[in-house]
Amino acid sequence: MVSNFRFASIPNIIFGAGKLPKLYDIIANFGKNVLFVIGGSSLKASGKWDEITNEMLRRTINFYSISIAGEPTPTLIDEAVKKFRQKNLDLIIGIGGGSVIDAGKAISAMILKNDSIKKYLEGVGDKVHDGKKIPYIAIPTTSGTGSEATKNAVITEVGPEGFKKSLRHDNLIPNYALVDPKLVVSCPPSITAACGMDAFTQLLEAYVSPRSSPVTDALAYSGIKQMKENMISVYSHKSSDFNARSAMAYGSLISGIVLANAGLGIVHGLASSIGGLFNIPHGTVCGTLLAESTKMNVKRLEQIGNDGEHGLMKYAIIGALIVDKGYEVNMDASYYCSVLIETLERWTKQLNLDTLGKYGITPKDVEKIVKKTGLKNNPVNLNPEDIKEIIVNRI
Amino acid sequence: MVSNFRFASIPNIIFGAGKLPKLYDIIANFGKNVLFVIGGSSLKASGKWDEITNEMLRRTINFYSISIAGEPTPTLIDEAVKKFRQKNLDLIIGIGGGSVIDAGKAISAMILKNDSIKKYLEGVGDKVHDGKKIPYIAIPTTSGTGSEATKNAVITEVGPEGFKKSLRHDNLIPNYALVDPKLVVSCPPSITAACGMDAFTQLLEAYVSPRSSPVTDALAYSGIKQMKENMISVYSHKSSDFNARSAMAYGSLISGIVLANAGLGIVHGLASSIGGLFNIPHGTVCGTLLAESTKMNVKRLEQIGNDGEHGLMKYAIIGALIVDKGYEVNMDASYYCSVLIETLERWTKQLNLDTLGKYGITPKDVEKIVKKTGLKNNPVNLNPEDIKEIIVNRI
Repeated sequence: MVSNFRFASIPNIIFGAGKLPKLYDIIANFGKNVLFVIGGSSLKASGKWDEITNEMLRRTINFYSISIAGEPTPTLIDEAVKKFRQKNLDLIIGIGGGSVIDAGKAISAMILKNDSIKKYLEGVGDKVHDGKKIPYIAIPTTSGTGSEATKNAVITEVGPEGFKKSLRHDNLIPNYALVDPKLVVSCPPSITAACGMDAFTQLLEAYVSPRSSPVTDALAYSGIKQMKENMISVYSHKSSDFNARSAMAYGSLISGIVLANAGLGIVHGLASSIGGLFNIPHGTVCGTLLAESTKMNVKRLEQIGNDGEHGLMKYAIIGALIVDKGYEVNMDASYYCSVLIETLERWTKQLNLDTLGKYGITPKDVEKIVKKTGLKNNPVNLNPEDIKEIIVNRI
Repeated sequence: MVSNFRFASIPNIIFGAGKLPKLYDIIANFGKNVLFVIGGSSLKASGKWDEITNEMLRRTINFYSISIAGEPTPTLIDEAVKKFRQKNLDLIIGIGGGSVIDAGKAISAMILKNDSIKKYLEGVGDKVHDGKKIPYIAIPTTSGTGSEATKNAVITEVGPEGFKKSLRHDNLIPNYALVDPKLVVSCPPSITAACGMDAFTQLLEAYVSPRSSPVTDALAYSGIKQMKENMISVYSHKSSDFNARSAMAYGSLISGIVLANAGLGIVHGLASSIGGLFNIPHGTVCGTLLAESTKMNVKRLEQIGNDGEHGLMKYAIIGALIVDKGYEVNMDASYYCSVLIETLERWTKQLNLDTLGKYGITPKDVEKIVKKTGLKNNPVNLNPEDIKEIIVNRI
């Protein structure tokens, strides 16, 4: 049977190696006044930025640009908005990793407002965004966050009172997601690994979420299928293999679509609290915690009997997919759950994912982290001791 | 590997038995001036129309309504547009079967234009629609066309020079698809069967289409999975079973999403030509031709050797799904293709689908039909003799 569900709109998607020039045709539909939100140096080093700016000049498109270094803070967004508010922008284009895409999304949403983004952040401010924005095109250069397809922009303030919170509205889903795996080729192995695990985590957490629907299930499954075959190879020796890069870019894109519609679980609960307290890349937190968290979820699902069966079966279906088996009635859930856990543990080692300790997190921080951690849409309830155990095992 | 693909946006989806009242909250986002496009008598007979109009009065929403009987013609659309062009509509809402949903979609697209829809129909007029429209909400009361999620409205003119052609633009995808399986419960068995087979055809044709992508594949597969379990039961004895109705409504919705993004094949090529020449319900043409067309496609795919392997494997995966088997490496494609064909042949009998002869089509019409039939995105080339054979076997 099909339960009730809601599914928000998704961006127009243009996917394919070498498809970046499609951007120029799309811009023409929106206008002549464009702001590019870009990252640090890699786009420029690759020559792509020159290619884009030359094309803008050739097409007499009036453009501005702003570079974003690191994860966007409220101050960064407010200042960018102040700078470009009077420019009568027709379109904003974000080209970069998750931080850049989120920054562009936040700027496109705040440029029609007259106050700070802090007032609109979930759990921080008291205003509700109305969804009005400047049209926005997202072009990812990492395969990780899926932000090119989500309705939220994550804004971070690091410190003792820090947070990692979202500006969110259905209408903030980018108008277009242009995914060109060629743009990801220059991504170094450690970032490839962290981003890949972030996307995989999003796919898996959305798949086992109680808010999942047949639509998100079908999509998450197809994303996991592509990623599981390429996770290790794209990291270790096939970084310039377009097929592997395409598969990872696809998984990442889909992870954004499904997280926007089914939510996430404990790993992203922890990524939110840890990311607010410490300077640690989002993908690294997710990647390093995924195997431990999955193990804990499976353990707790097994303990709650009948109520846990549905969740266990979903983990098992993914375990079976890992070894190229389709779903079968009466499949051995317990066996395939362990296949999944073992695979995630093996990936954690093979991808050389940093432990939390590498970023200065010590056992005495655990209590503080747990207090700030929400379960989100985790498939099973975890108590504070469970969450502690997950963290401690990865310090 | 993931090939290049494009995926157009999809509607905001609200899916679930009893969800119709969500409509009232959505209307508030658009304005106070609303046109309802509805069908004949069944909405009124069910009491739903009274429920809706009472709610409109209670909320002081100014509304108009227009009833559509049969498949929309250019004249019908032009006259409706003329009648409501000066009403400053904020929103159009279509509630009904595929014809009604398409009519509403066409009216929403034409109300900002000053000429006949005929000028914008593919293969009929010479103008290209720019996508500008009044916001549109589609609420299906049959599980068949998937029009609530597509970017085209099919307009029909029956006669010797008749046609069945589309007004099409990415932006014509409804803003919302509100799918409430409770609205479908009153649908009689023969319409349930024809509509169900139409939706199933759309899912299967999109799945085997050369334009399919991992996104459309994942979705089509999930739609087929739901429909194959309920196709017969919803027709024969479970018509008021919400679970079965939900599954069919889900399949239909998904069929619209995938056909909009992957295209259709020979069955819909024939539905277009036959539907232009004869007065025959669209679902009946599709349903009655599906088994024969699939048999022909499989035969031709087998004959072209390596080039046909991919298409055969896709049919085989669906055959395996019919008997609850997942994809496996080295699966016996030929065996599972025959499982699929036999199932479709059995359904054709069990659903008592009319033959074409019942609608006055005779062997002497075949030549004329074939001449007007396009292959669309069929997975294999068929010659006129092949197409003749498909039709003749169903007269």
